[in-house]
Amino acid sequence: MIKNKEITSRDENFAEWFTNIVQKAGVVDYTSVKGFYIMAPNGYAIWENMQKVLDDMFKKTGHKNIYMPMLIPESLLLKEKEHIEGFAPEVAWVTQGGANKLEEKLCIRPTSETLFCDYYSKIVKSYRDLPKLYNQWCSVVRWEKETRPLLRGREFLWQEGHTIHATEQEAKEETLRMLNVYRDFFVNYLAIPVLVGQKTEKEKFAGAENTYTCEALMYNGVCLQSATSHYFGQKFAKAFDMKFLDKDNKLKYVYQTSWGITTRALAATIMVHGDDNGLVLPPMIAPTKVVIIPIGKDENIAKICKNVCKKLEDNNISCILDDSDKSPGFKFSQYEMEGVPLRIELGKRDYENGKITLVRRDTQEGMQINLDEDILKAVETTLKTIQKDMLERATQRCEKMTYTAKSLKDFEEIISSHPGFIKAMWCGDINCEEKIKKINGIKSRCIPFKQEQLDEKCACCGKKAKHMVVWGIQY
Amino acid sequence: MIKNKEITSRDENFAEWFTNIVQKAGVVDYTSVKGFYIMAPNGYAIWENMQKVLDDMFKKTGHKNIYMPMLIPESLLLKEKEHIEGFAPEVAWVTQGGANKLEEKLCIRPTSETLFCDYYSKIVKSYRDLPKLYNQWCSVVRWEKETRPLLRGREFLWQEGHTIHATEQEAKEETLRMLNVYRDFFVNYLAIPVLVGQKTEKEKFAGAENTYTCEALMYNGVCLQSATSHYFGQKFAKAFDMKFLDKDNKLKYVYQTSWGITTRALAATIMVHGDDNGLVLPPMIAPTKVVIIPIGKDENIAKICKNVCKKLEDNNISCILDDSDKSPGFKFSQYEMEGVPLRIELGKRDYENGKITLVRRDTQEGMQINLDEDILKAVETTLKTIQKDMLERATQRCEKMTYTAKSLKDFEEIISSHPGFIKAMWCGDINCEEKIKKINGIKSRCIPFKQEQLDEKCACCGKKAKHMVVWGIQY
Repeated sequence: MIKNKEITSRDENFAEWFTNIVQKAGVVDYTSVKGFYIMAPNGYAIWENMQKVLDDMFKKTGHKNIYMPMLIPESLLLKEKEHIEGFAPEVAWVTQGGANKLEEKLCIRPTSETLFCDYYSKIVKSYRDLPKLYNQWCSVVRWEKETRPLLRGREFLWQEGHTIHATEQEAKEETLRMLNVYRDFFVNYLAIPVLVGQKTEKEKFAGAENTYTCEALMYNGVCLQSATSHYFGQKFAKAFDMKFLDKDNKLKYVYQTSWGITTRALAATIMVHGDDNGLVLPPMIAPTKVVIIPIGKDENIAKICKNVCKKLEDNNISCILDDSDKSPGFKFSQYEMEGVPLRIELGKRDYENGKITLVRRDTQEGMQINLDEDILKAVETTLKTIQKDMLERATQRCEKMTYTAKSLKDFEEIISSHPGFIKAMWCGDINCEEKIKKINGIKSRCIPFKQEQLDEKCACCGKKAKHMVVWGIQY
Repeated sequence: MIKNKEITSRDENFAEWFTNIVQKAGVVDYTSVKGFYIMAPNGYAIWENMQKVLDDMFKKTGHKNIYMPMLIPESLLLKEKEHIEGFAPEVAWVTQGGANKLEEKLCIRPTSETLFCDYYSKIVKSYRDLPKLYNQWCSVVRWEKETRPLLRGREFLWQEGHTIHATEQEAKEETLRMLNVYRDFFVNYLAIPVLVGQKTEKEKFAGAENTYTCEALMYNGVCLQSATSHYFGQKFAKAFDMKFLDKDNKLKYVYQTSWGITTRALAATIMVHGDDNGLVLPPMIAPTKVVIIPIGKDENIAKICKNVCKKLEDNNISCILDDSDKSPGFKFSQYEMEGVPLRIELGKRDYENGKITLVRRDTQEGMQINLDEDILKAVETTLKTIQKDMLERATQRCEKMTYTAKSLKDFEEIISSHPGFIKAMWCGDINCEEKIKKINGIKSRCIPFKQEQLDEKCACCGKKAKHMVVWGIQY
C-alpha cells in the first residue's frame, strides 16, 4: 500500500493520525474557541446519512420527532438530585439577554430529560395518552476540560429519545429495543462490531436506574462508548410529578427511558476503519459510494464514464465523475482520503483492451472487468463485498484484541503491552472498580449480556464473582 | 361548514385563533420560559418535510451542508460594525462554563455570518477554492421583547446559507438564484403567492448591501417577511480579511451572500390556509396526505380500507388508517384540525352501494367513487386539485387585498378598514418611510421587481417618485 506522506501513520501515533485525517478528509475543522469544532462538508454528509438511517429506524419503531428549547431554567435542572449532581459541573450558563441580566440563569441543554419531563407532566393525563415516544435531533453543550474533535467537544450533535410508559415492563422493553436498534446500526451500517451490556452502578447515567451500552474497540485498542439506552424507572416521574390515571382509576407515576447516539459514532467509524491514506467508509453510510476517474483526454472514454455515472445514479448509487484538470494521482489520493469506497478508472490502454478498472478503497485491490459486462452489477456486488469484509476484519481484530485477566497483575500486563477489551470476573463491589481504575485508568465498559464463567473469583479481591465484566481504557 | 366550537373563529379574533390552533393541531406548545416554544410532533413533521424539499433544492444548486458552533466569541461578533449594531441589543450571553466565569463572553448565534467569515478566511487561498457554497440547518437565539409562537420566538429553527465568490456578478446571481428557490418553494409547495423584491435601505439586513425578500400576505391582511436573501458585497470580506489570489495573480477580497428561511414559513402556511376547523395543509408538504376512516365494525370494510392504505403507501402517498375505537365524528375533527388534505370514509351503506367517499379538507367537499374504480388515481388527482386550488384561492385573496395609495390619507383609510398590501409610489427618502410608519406602524415591504407606474409623485411628500413600493403592517 502506498503511504500518504502528509499524515502521521496510525501505528506511529494514533492520536496525531486521527487529528490529521479528520481535517484533511473534510470531516472536522477547528475554531478559535476551545472545544468547539466545525463539522465540515464531508463529515456533515456522513452524519446526515447516519441520521437518515437512524431516523427511519426510530420512526419504524413508533417514535416521532419534536424539538425542545436549547435553554433550561436553573430551577428545572435542579429538580432531580442525582441528575443535577452529574451535570451541574459541566453546563454553560446564559446570564444575560440583550442588555439585561436575567432574573433566573438558563443553562444550555447538556441533555434534555428535564425539559421532556416538564412537557410530559403537562400533556399526559390518562393511560390513553401513553406511551409517549418522542425523539429530538439537536446539539448539546457540556463544558469539558479536555477536548478533542468528535470525541469530546464542548458542543456536539446527537439524538436523544425520551419515552414514558404505563408499565415497568413496557419501559424496560423500550430500553432494550432501542439498544438493539443501535447495535443493528453499528453492525449492519457502520460495519463495527459492538459489545452490548449493562453499565455498572458506578458508570451508569446520572439519574438512571440502569444504563445499557454499545461499546466499540478502536484500532489502537482504546474503547469508545458509542451509544447508550437508559431505564429511569420512576425517578424523574416522582421529581417532576408525571402521573396518569390508569385503567383501574388510580393515579400512577409513569416509567421512563432515554437513549442517545452522538457524532462519536462518526469518530468510531474513522478510528475502526481508517488507514494511513485516510478514511475508509462503509458503503452503507458513504455520502459518495463511487468515484469515476477518466484518465487522459479522450472522447470515447469521457462518454463511457458519463454513461456509467448516469447508470449508477439512476440506480441510487451516489457517484461522482471527476473529469477536472487535476492529475489522476492527485484525484486518487483525494478520494482515498475522503474514504470513497470504490474508484472506477478508465484509461486509454484499458479502453483499447475493452476493459475498465475497479479499485476498492478498503483493500486497495484493483480488478478489471470487460466494458461489455454489466458494470452496475459488478459495482453492486463489490460494494456489498466491501461492506461485508469491513465488518469481518473489524470483528476479527476485536476478537484478537480481547484478553482475559484473572488478577490485577494480568490487568497490568495486558494494558502495558496491548490495550483492548479485557474480560474479567467481578464481585460487584465498587471498591474493586476503583482499584482497577488505578491501573492506567482502566474502567468497566459493561456487564455483557453474553456472560462467560471465566473463574469463580473476582479478579481484583478474590471474593466470589457475580459477573463477567469487560474492562478497558476509554476515550 | 361545521364550525369547531372549541376554537375562536379566525374572523372574530385572528391572533387568538392562531394561538388556539397551533396548540390544538400539535404544532407548537408553550414552555415555562418566555419566548421558548416546543415544536410538537405535527409541527416538527411539517418542518421536516419543508427541510427535505428545500435541502434538495439547495443541493441541486450546488450547496453543501456544514455545522458551525452555536457560540460566538464577543470579539468575533464585534468585527463588522453594522452587523453588531443590528444584533448586539438582542443576543443571549454565556458568561459561565461549569463553575468558572469565562474570560471572554460568548453569545449564542443570532445568525452565523461572523463564524462563516472566520472559517472562510482560513480555508480560502486561491480562486481555485471559490466559490464556497455552504449552508447550515440549526436554531438561533434572539432576545426579542415581544414574543409569539412561530412568529417571534427567542429561539427559532432555520437554515442559513453563506456563500463567497470571486466576482461581484457571481455573488449577485447567487443572491437572486436563492431568492428564486424560495419563491418556487412558497408558490409550488406551500401554495402561497409571494411578492418578491428588494428591501429599502431602512429595512435591509444589518451589514448587507442589498436584501431581497419574499413577502406573503396572511388571511387577516398582515404581512409576513417569509424568506430573505442578502448581497454583502465586500463588507464582511474587508472586516474579516477574506482574500484570495486571483487568476491574474492579484490578492482580492471575495464577494459574499447569505440567505435564510425559518419556521415562519410554517406560520405563513397556517395563517394563509387555515380555517375555523384547524390547519389546512397543502398536499405537497403535509406529513400525512390521506387519512382512511372505516365507519362501523365490518370485516369487508376493514379489508378494503387496509388495501387502499397499502396501495397508497406503496405509491409513496403517506397515509394513516385510523380504525381505533374513537367515534367517527371525533376522528373527523381531529384530522381536520391537523390539516390532513384528504379523508377517505367507508361505511356500511356506502359499501353496500359499492361506493367509497373522499372528502377534501380545504373545501370540506365530499365525492363518491365506485369501489371498483382506480382509487389511487382518484386520490392522486384530488391531491393535485387541492394543491392547485389552494394556491388559486390564496392568490385571488392576495389580489383582492392589494390596494393603491396615492396620499397619506389613502394610507390611513386603507389601513383602518382593510389591511393588506398597499402599493404606493415613493421618492426614495427615508423621511417619507418614517412618516408612513407613523400610520399604524406601516412599513415598506419591498420594492417589487415588477414595477408599476401608479403616479409620478411620491404618495407621502409629493416629490418625484423613484419606485413603486409595497407597504403594509407586519408581524
